[in-house]
Amino acid sequence: MPGEFDFISWLRGQQRRTALVPVPAGDDLAVVRWPVADLLLVGVDQVLDGVHFDSAVHAPRLIGAKVMNRNLSDCAAMACLPAVAVVAAALPAGRSLEYAKELYLGMQEAGRAFDCEIVGGDTGTWAGRLAVSVTILGRSAGVEPVTRAGARPGDGIYVTGPLGGSLHLTGAAEEGLRAGRHMTFTPRVALARDLAARYRVTAMMDLSDGLSRDLGHICAASKVGAVIDAARVPVHGHAIAHGGDALMRALNDGEDYELVLTSPDAISEELATRVGEIRAGGGVVLVREGREEALAPRGWEHSL
Amino acid sequence: MPGEFDFISWLRGQQRRTALVPVPAGDDLAVVRWPVADLLLVGVDQVLDGVHFDSAVHAPRLIGAKVMNRNLSDCAAMACLPAVAVVAAALPAGRSLEYAKELYLGMQEAGRAFDCEIVGGDTGTWAGRLAVSVTILGRSAGVEPVTRAGARPGDGIYVTGPLGGSLHLTGAAEEGLRAGRHMTFTPRVALARDLAARYRVTAMMDLSDGLSRDLGHICAASKVGAVIDAARVPVHGHAIAHGGDALMRALNDGEDYELVLTSPDAISEELATRVGEIRAGGGVVLVREGREEALAPRGWEHSL
Repeated sequence: MPGEFDFISWLRGQQRRTALVPVPAGDDLAVVRWPVADLLLVGVDQVLDGVHFDSAVHAPRLIGAKVMNRNLSDCAAMACLPAVAVVAAALPAGRSLEYAKELYLGMQEAGRAFDCEIVGGDTGTWAGRLAVSVTILGRSAGVEPVTRAGARPGDGIYVTGPLGGSLHLTGAAEEGLRAGRHMTFTPRVALARDLAARYRVTAMMDLSDGLSRDLGHICAASKVGAVIDAARVPVHGHAIAHGGDALMRALNDGEDYELVLTSPDAISEELATRVGEIRAGGGVVLVREGREEALAPRGWEHSL
Repeated sequence: MPGEFDFISWLRGQQRRTALVPVPAGDDLAVVRWPVADLLLVGVDQVLDGVHFDSAVHAPRLIGAKVMNRNLSDCAAMACLPAVAVVAAALPAGRSLEYAKELYLGMQEAGRAFDCEIVGGDTGTWAGRLAVSVTILGRSAGVEPVTRAGARPGDGIYVTGPLGGSLHLTGAAEEGLRAGRHMTFTPRVALARDLAARYRVTAMMDLSDGLSRDLGHICAASKVGAVIDAARVPVHGHAIAHGGDALMRALNDGEDYELVLTSPDAISEELATRVGEIRAGGGVVLVREGREEALAPRGWEHSL
């Protein structure tokens, strides 16, 4: 029966020594030569079976890709460059070595698409369900990090793509679509850095909890309010295909992994769509057919 | 019913802005000004219910302390200074906000004992069991990191304290003892840095899987062999109290969180106990009553 140390041996063979990482995983800690001019950005994001994926439906490579991409999307949200990652996986007893490798390869492929190497990890087997967490380290690399706290009255509010329906199966046979976009999105790292380099981006987030809730976070951090123009919100085909109120899906579904950002500049329509404006005060309101209504955060919240 | 965002609000109130951390948790990523002269060391270690602790027995504050201390112990193993940490927790549905806070406070207290702030995290609730992972960032801060790969024939092998019986209840009424030392150990950070500053420490690890297995890792990484003198191995009172072959407990039980290190220097007996010597070849042997026997790694290994 394959053991943890067989897996660790295999992992070591996967890892690359780079200029940034003279001692990769395999020791107690990896050693990284941090670029002296760069701020370091760090955060962690996990995926849990039954919450962020369904191990009965989603292949391990897809699950691995999702957890890494969620972290890369956090880098996009701050306009930083992904640098290195470490991973922790809790594997249900009885899963094969092959399953663990597929999970790892999903993370590795997603990371390498952004030159982000996995430099360390911890794998354990237990009687519990599959849980995977990734910690990502990002570099400022010439672009000042964009927080949530800089939005000012008069700034335009922009989103980088159509929203809604990400969590839902479309009925298409193709695995990626079947799984829903939330499993297969592309983190907006390059776009985020392009935007932050070309325009004054005053606040930015990635849309994981839904525009209504995430824009509320920007308003709270920036101590401002926001007005969304219903007619301008780009609604994804998946939200429409699912039926019901497609606009409400676009505003509330979450797991879009597009960016919401604010700027006093007129951002090119090719890069992002203007959906509203920051104003003084607080809270998020929606203007639909000339009528203003409070937009309560109805996006994703886990209860404790 | 309290939700994730109530917990996040509480967490933000816990966090300190420091010279090292101008933007703490609460944004997509925390921003850290990495000290330019320092190598960065990074790794992740998790604890899983039923494997590393038992949530039916151990209080959440103790569980939080253990996972942070395991990571601080990894810093000790490399002789680096703990800097900042991020945490991911998967909480079983129905656990109270109070439980989550206790878990966090356990991590925070353990970290702050070493000036290591928690700067970010991800908390989720699920139908699964309790899993907590901590990623730690350490600084070289004037001491070259010590890997597992530098042991040379003729080096002495040292351990920093008595071994064995860490996992076992002692029957004492006091909570810490009842839980076993594996829940309540003190990471050897200061001792590790003192040793690495005063002596030529050629290889070092913290003892989590048992001396037989962990010394095997040093031998494999350094391409050397090791001879352990049975009469010199310091056996912990808990190993003796448990009954059976106390020496085998000391060599194999694991979760001691003492350090094993190699050095060509004569290290003061007040700091560490010499238990054997590195030699050419490979593998770990035990010399007991003049007879040499192969010491198979019988320490902790999870099977996949």
